[in-house]
Amino acid sequence: MNVHIDSTATDRVLAPDELEAALRAIGAERYHHLHPFHRLLHAGALTRGQVQAWALNRYYYQAMIPIKDAHALTKMPAPELRREWRRRIIDHDGDGPGTGGIERWLKLAEGVGLDRSYVQSTDGILPGTRFAVEAYVNFVRDRLILEGIASSLTEMFSPGIIADRVRGMLAGYAFITEETLAYFTPRLTQAPQDVDFALRYVKAEARTAAEQAAVLAALRFKCDVLWAQLDALYLAYVDPGLIPPGAFVPAAE
Amino acid sequence: MNVHIDSTATDRVLAPDELEAALRAIGAERYHHLHPFHRLLHAGALTRGQVQAWALNRYYYQAMIPIKDAHALTKMPAPELRREWRRRIIDHDGDGPGTGGIERWLKLAEGVGLDRSYVQSTDGILPGTRFAVEAYVNFVRDRLILEGIASSLTEMFSPGIIADRVRGMLAGYAFITEETLAYFTPRLTQAPQDVDFALRYVKAEARTAAEQAAVLAALRFKCDVLWAQLDALYLAYVDPGLIPPGAFVPAAE
Repeated sequence: MNVHIDSTATDRVLAPDELEAALRAIGAERYHHLHPFHRLLHAGALTRGQVQAWALNRYYYQAMIPIKDAHALTKMPAPELRREWRRRIIDHDGDGPGTGGIERWLKLAEGVGLDRSYVQSTDGILPGTRFAVEAYVNFVRDRLILEGIASSLTEMFSPGIIADRVRGMLAGYAFITEETLAYFTPRLTQAPQDVDFALRYVKAEARTAAEQAAVLAALRFKCDVLWAQLDALYLAYVDPGLIPPGAFVPAAE
Repeated sequence: MNVHIDSTATDRVLAPDELEAALRAIGAERYHHLHPFHRLLHAGALTRGQVQAWALNRYYYQAMIPIKDAHALTKMPAPELRREWRRRIIDHDGDGPGTGGIERWLKLAEGVGLDRSYVQSTDGILPGTRFAVEAYVNFVRDRLILEGIASSLTEMFSPGIIADRVRGMLAGYAFITEETLAYFTPRLTQAPQDVDFALRYVKAEARTAAEQAAVLAALRFKCDVLWAQLDALYLAYVDPGLIPPGAFVPAAE
């Protein structure tokens, strides 16, 4: 595995607030709210089949998040750190049947007309989705916990995109209801809580220029993971519509 | 990591020649000679910048092949098996400075106008390339050696595509010379030799229906790895020309 050295790094150690500003600057340039697929999704400009492709592929990302977070737990020596982080697993997996973020995503997928067991099989997802999501899981497994925690910081930028998405999708698609989008409601409070902890951790623990460069590179990597998933969707289902062999083919509309 | 169960598998054990036929059928449906990027490349229909993007991204695949093969070596208990497989590493890494497949690929990249150290840095490659290539390395690291060897069998289909490529690129691009394409000449003899061994191994060792299904899934996975690299190139540099943040931008032509 290549180590990705941040070519913009200097030897100067940033003050914690400078580090936060540098992290926010990465989001402003590279977060996937800028991707044309999201602009179309939120503008109500996609077909039902294209929205299905998004829900189907994004399911794999949702489903692997607790695996990613379990890898993070394995690198946390202190109970208080693990207590904080395990909340993410609980948020996604729920407290019993029919609860949790993954279940809510399945309801979203069913709400847009997909079959639950087809979604769960992940048979129809794009190879580009699979490779990007697994790159994220492997990154957290293989790197320092500082880098793993930093890679979660794309959530700094998510409340804005979620608000846009829910408003835009409810207005733009007759087949979308508030109930279908129930996944996103708790995320609006969970994400800031998660970010609050992760950002404090990163600002406190990245003390050397090399550690700060690794933190910035981790966030850039994670932006690539999110962006590449939309690239794969765009190529296959929007323009030029090049669906790879074996992937989901929307029904004619 | 998901285990990808072959949904077309039956409980019947295939005869070795039936297994080979099933492997060849996967190539006929999923090998990347069918991808529109290759059709354009071989038809002389790309710009110099698009050919540069291909050479730059494909370098990362070439550069990681010996890492992948070293993972395979770690799973081979017998000296005769390792002796056979290590040839692949020698072919890529050469016998001294200025030799080997990776060096020849760098000459190809320089021949189409790229800077050697920029190529070697892999700074400008697409995230989609990085994730697909690393998925391949991780597959060989994490799976059974039977699956790792089976995943190499896309080479069964490569002599045809290489002949098409060399003929088409020499005819189609004024900036391409035979010397630039020197990478491909030894591949025409190396690949069949590699395939001969790997195919015999797989036909002899995949004795149960489950092992045969795993072998077929491994080849399907590898076709996805190759296809996804061309998908990423196509989206970024052909149509619609959506270059991700931070990736190589060809000079205006």
